[in-house]
Amino acid sequence: MERKLRTLATLSANHFSAQLDAVVLRTGRHTERIRIEHPQAAAVLPFVDPNHILMVRQWRYAIARETLEIPAGKADPGESLETCAVRELHEETGYEAARLCSLFRYYPAIGYSNELIEIFAASGLLRRHQAQDEDEISRIEVICLDDVQDLIHRGVIQDGKTVIGVSLFDSKRKRGEIPTDFFA
Amino acid sequence: MERKLRTLATLSANHFSAQLDAVVLRTGRHTERIRIEHPQAAAVLPFVDPNHILMVRQWRYAIARETLEIPAGKADPGESLETCAVRELHEETGYEAARLCSLFRYYPAIGYSNELIEIFAASGLLRRHQAQDEDEISRIEVICLDDVQDLIHRGVIQDGKTVIGVSLFDSKRKRGEIPTDFFA
Repeated sequence: MERKLRTLATLSANHFSAQLDAVVLRTGRHTERIRIEHPQAAAVLPFVDPNHILMVRQWRYAIARETLEIPAGKADPGESLETCAVRELHEETGYEAARLCSLFRYYPAIGYSNELIEIFAASGLLRRHQAQDEDEISRIEVICLDDVQDLIHRGVIQDGKTVIGVSLFDSKRKRGEIPTDFFA
Repeated sequence: MERKLRTLATLSANHFSAQLDAVVLRTGRHTERIRIEHPQAAAVLPFVDPNHILMVRQWRYAIARETLEIPAGKADPGESLETCAVRELHEETGYEAARLCSLFRYYPAIGYSNELIEIFAASGLLRRHQAQDEDEISRIEVICLDDVQDLIHRGVIQDGKTVIGVSLFDSKRKRGEIPTDFFA
């Protein structure tokens, strides 16, 4: 294991922080590590029917580019990841979901961030409002799942959580692990 | 799009940095964003035969836990991602690969990091040395691909790049996109 000696400096913004820690490695060597202290997060694969999902176009500051992704966001303090998924879907698309099915929990950037993302599939969608998250979302699209797979394999979609959500939904469906009433 | 006004503070360690930026959002609202400035990275799905891969056990400081992952690491300045993949495989496992096949390039943490990871499949493995990366790797294991899939679906493997590597190799093989001589 690796042991923290002390935190040397911290940056904070948007409910998460970056810390620079002095650390002892398993071999006894000393080094410094940057560690992102991030809230848990939820992402949603929102099915409007068994073959089409909602996706959002948004500007991503970290890579200075617009992307096509499934809806997602950080959990508020004390909020469950299921509630977070429902809220983010509603804020980013205006839709509510009748059914939610957990697909996977994973660490996207295990080398430097403690962020854990839980990905859900959602069905029984009903449009309640206009999307509210104008600061971040520029457009909502309905896309055929086969087209999403093609966009992944052509390298157009390069967002990790979208790839994992689509891939694991597909393999869980083939393994019979999606509830039979999910598309009821 | 979002526009940077200025960088307010920076942390640096291990060849990457975390920056706190003052930013204007697309709606004109001002906010602050943490942005990880990270080198590109490579990961390798190393096949010892068509059904078994090498994996590494290592301590992950950011989540304070030992994990089971495919070999991976940051590119050195000026190093191609293909060369990086070969070097990281060699350092972490002691093996060299005769063949390398690019599977996918993606952003693992698109909300706050510019890190781009290219995942390769490798075959024609030959053991050259003992693994050299004692600071980070505690054990090397050979695991059947079906067992890796089970470990993913049981939630034991929670590392994003490992899930994407295994899932996309599987779907590329089904789509006929893996070169026929890859396992020659």
